[in-house]
Amino acid sequence: MSADFLGYLAGMITTFSGLPQLLTSYRRRNLSGLDLRFLVLFLVGISLWTIYGILIDSKPIIIFNSITLLIWIPILGLKIREQRAERG
Amino acid sequence: MSADFLGYLAGMITTFSGLPQLLTSYRRRNLSGLDLRFLVLFLVGISLWTIYGILIDSKPIIIFNSITLLIWIPILGLKIREQRAERG
Repeated sequence: MSADFLGYLAGMITTFSGLPQLLTSYRRRNLSGLDLRFLVLFLVGISLWTIYGILIDSKPIIIFNSITLLIWIPILGLKIREQRAERG
Repeated sequence: MSADFLGYLAGMITTFSGLPQLLTSYRRRNLSGLDLRFLVLFLVGISLWTIYGILIDSKPIIIFNSITLLIWIPILGLKIREQRAERG
């Protein structure tokens, strides 16, 4: 197994690991266990990774991190909506 | 801002974004909103990133992903414990 293949595999798995979280969060609307600061920091970090990928012109870094953003931004949205509803 | 600096910043923020999640999960023992499949897949992916870092001898990739493992393995442990307790 080449290092590159392992890198793509790692990227795929970490990127799509967010999908079951998005589906569960969307279906059950229970994000109480998810920490808002984690979600915000994680998305800031992933955004910086995407910009970094653009700067060094690395397609895998751009693609994997853009998909991660697409998966986790809705999760953040659901979390914010839950917290607003709790505050009434 | 150099690309390298941005990469380290992105790595730091995404790595340590897990800390507030670990603290919240540990204190409140409420991981109901966290999806077990996400946690398992995420840790598999991060483990592969760490091995990838070793293969290409990239210290930042090794360090950041090892710290991420140290943060998220206890969260997985808390989640498994919670699910076992629910099953009684």
